[in-house]
Amino acid sequence: MKYRVVLVEPKYEGNVGSVARVMKNFGFTDLILINPPKLGEFSLAMSAHAVDILDKCKIFRSFEEAVSTSNLIVGATGISGKSNDEHVRMPLYNPSELKEKLCGWVGVISLVFGREDVGLSNEELKKCDMIVKIPTNDEYPVMNLSHAAAVILYELGDFPGGKMQLAKHDDLDRLYVHWGSVLERVGYPDHKRAKTLLMLRRILGRAILTGREVQTLRGVLRKIERRINK
Amino acid sequence: MKYRVVLVEPKYEGNVGSVARVMKNFGFTDLILINPPKLGEFSLAMSAHAVDILDKCKIFRSFEEAVSTSNLIVGATGISGKSNDEHVRMPLYNPSELKEKLCGWVGVISLVFGREDVGLSNEELKKCDMIVKIPTNDEYPVMNLSHAAAVILYELGDFPGGKMQLAKHDDLDRLYVHWGSVLERVGYPDHKRAKTLLMLRRILGRAILTGREVQTLRGVLRKIERRINK
Repeated sequence: MKYRVVLVEPKYEGNVGSVARVMKNFGFTDLILINPPKLGEFSLAMSAHAVDILDKCKIFRSFEEAVSTSNLIVGATGISGKSNDEHVRMPLYNPSELKEKLCGWVGVISLVFGREDVGLSNEELKKCDMIVKIPTNDEYPVMNLSHAAAVILYELGDFPGGKMQLAKHDDLDRLYVHWGSVLERVGYPDHKRAKTLLMLRRILGRAILTGREVQTLRGVLRKIERRINK
Repeated sequence: MKYRVVLVEPKYEGNVGSVARVMKNFGFTDLILINPPKLGEFSLAMSAHAVDILDKCKIFRSFEEAVSTSNLIVGATGISGKSNDEHVRMPLYNPSELKEKLCGWVGVISLVFGREDVGLSNEELKKCDMIVKIPTNDEYPVMNLSHAAAVILYELGDFPGGKMQLAKHDDLDRLYVHWGSVLERVGYPDHKRAKTLLMLRRILGRAILTGREVQTLRGVLRKIERRINK
């Protein structure tokens, strides 16, 4: 799946630069601008290390030209389902639903973001195949353009999550057995031992231990045993 | 669960305003600043309709004071697991894992974001109970401060998704039956009919129709039938 980010008549060059930056953060490269403002120093500053994306962005005069070579056009709207406008008869997907819907397909997708003040026009929304809406507080649903892009590109970006080197279950089991023998060794009351072991198992289970953490905990238990045996 | 957003020594007032705005977008209200810059016109402009959050933010001189009344401190880092620093021995949760881990608990959580240039110090990270890391492109992992806040607050915000008034399954079944009789009525070859109906069912199923769309499609089929019967 190839994504393009299309900004329709952005007013502020800073936002264009910010969108370029977050595109690069999440591995997107193709930026398309429709009637943008002049891109000067401030857009470069806001793009930080994503100047390359600004450099090779494409500029068009109309919505039709900008999206003409896409397979699918996804429009972003800040308007909730309360309005009676035509376009909201389409289901509004939230970003994670959008990701699910797009999963497994091959093609070019244009992600279209509207103007800072009035968003996409109804005519533009009607040209979209799908509409994505970030779930927000009704009290203040209007997001900054680059924030909206950040959230949607975060969902669609496909980078592995935090490096969680989880402990193997065998090692966890050995840790619990070890705790059991330590409790026995320190004279923990027989009738409480099973319940306390269960609580330890639950606490450590909830913590989702890494392999290194299990080894460190077992080292602590060994130290305790050695001290007792002295 | 009560969240506070803590910005550690932010350099740029624009970022403070932007964070306030996205906090309000996702329903968060408590902003804490540690040694912030002077908040002038630009922070107000960037906060847009979230001036109230800036107005009642609390300012502290040290990390310890700022987080002293929290139950849990969650630090955001842009540094991936490749580093050998102490803190990365803790598992790095991505924002959706963080949300899962926090689900069902009651208490005050400080979400701590570091400086624009160097993030949180190792000393500060060591004081955190959990670390959250947004999965990014290794080529350019450093996000704008307010973008990082946008993504994490989007995950932790708890607003209902797009209003998807899905069609009832009965209505869908009637639509497929209706299609079957239309195919028969137009003389669609018997030996192809079942396969084509299955394809229609798959296409429409994949589209996840709303109730209104089902009724409109049935209206179209009725029109076809009436035209044929003339």
